[in-house]
Amino acid sequence: MEKYIEPFVQVCESVFQSFLNYTISVGRPYLCESTTTHNWDISGIIGLTGEARGAVVLSMKEDLALRITENLSGVKKTQVDDEVVDAIGELVNIIAGNAKKGLEESFRLIISLPTIVHGDQHTISWPVEKTRIICIPCAIPSEKAEFCLSVALEITKGQ
Amino acid sequence: MEKYIEPFVQVCESVFQSFLNYTISVGRPYLCESTTTHNWDISGIIGLTGEARGAVVLSMKEDLALRITENLSGVKKTQVDDEVVDAIGELVNIIAGNAKKGLEESFRLIISLPTIVHGDQHTISWPVEKTRIICIPCAIPSEKAEFCLSVALEITKGQ
Repeated sequence: MEKYIEPFVQVCESVFQSFLNYTISVGRPYLCESTTTHNWDISGIIGLTGEARGAVVLSMKEDLALRITENLSGVKKTQVDDEVVDAIGELVNIIAGNAKKGLEESFRLIISLPTIVHGDQHTISWPVEKTRIICIPCAIPSEKAEFCLSVALEITKGQ
Repeated sequence: MEKYIEPFVQVCESVFQSFLNYTISVGRPYLCESTTTHNWDISGIIGLTGEARGAVVLSMKEDLALRITENLSGVKKTQVDDEVVDAIGELVNIIAGNAKKGLEESFRLIISLPTIVHGDQHTISWPVEKTRIICIPCAIPSEKAEFCLSVALEITKGQ
């Protein structure tokens, strides 16, 4: 599925640039092993169905989620509230929606509603037998912050 | 959307009974306010698309997830590992899959892959403007344990 990762990388770069004015640097995507642990405070999760089945997850530390919301709303944020949930939900929604368009030549995708998880140092995983998960590590040098876009995609078209 | 909740309640009862031999008691489903906080350790999340759009989330404390996995595998569990992730993923997959069948007369649903979140006392939320979330509080009296099935469903059919 590695060839399907490129649209997610491109969309992530352009969404962070155009919506937030953040230039991001994208590390080499790697296959998450089940032993890989990432500790994040907030994640936006969108399920993918259609001719492929999977999920897109945008995960970050709380501090970055607050700064992103401040950036979008112009209002100083000190804790995760409805506006922060909406901002992270909207961000993952735009990333999944635009990546979906980029993949339309390969297969048709439908995206679910975003679900937001908030909790100190949570980890995200998928049943190991079902699919492979690609982690795309990203950094925002100007904010000295990191985040991660994880994509799990299992092609079902024609099966 | 309250009328679409009944299939989830029935399926949850029958899946816990038939797969785990747990008789559960189901509390009155209620509309989650954005201020409602629930602190859970592990959640299995499945996105719903098709003629409705939403998500189903099964959330519980770590202790119950370990006991459920022990019950399914026959092996003593002391920490969340791949088998626990698989067990919770399978459980939410069966619940969403069976509820989907129960709703087929009303609308066609497609379910995404399960995503498992693990983290002390995490909370789950959805962008407030987009949909209403129904929380179904459940208890397993024999295990002195509680869990929660949350359903967010936005009907898109014909729109």
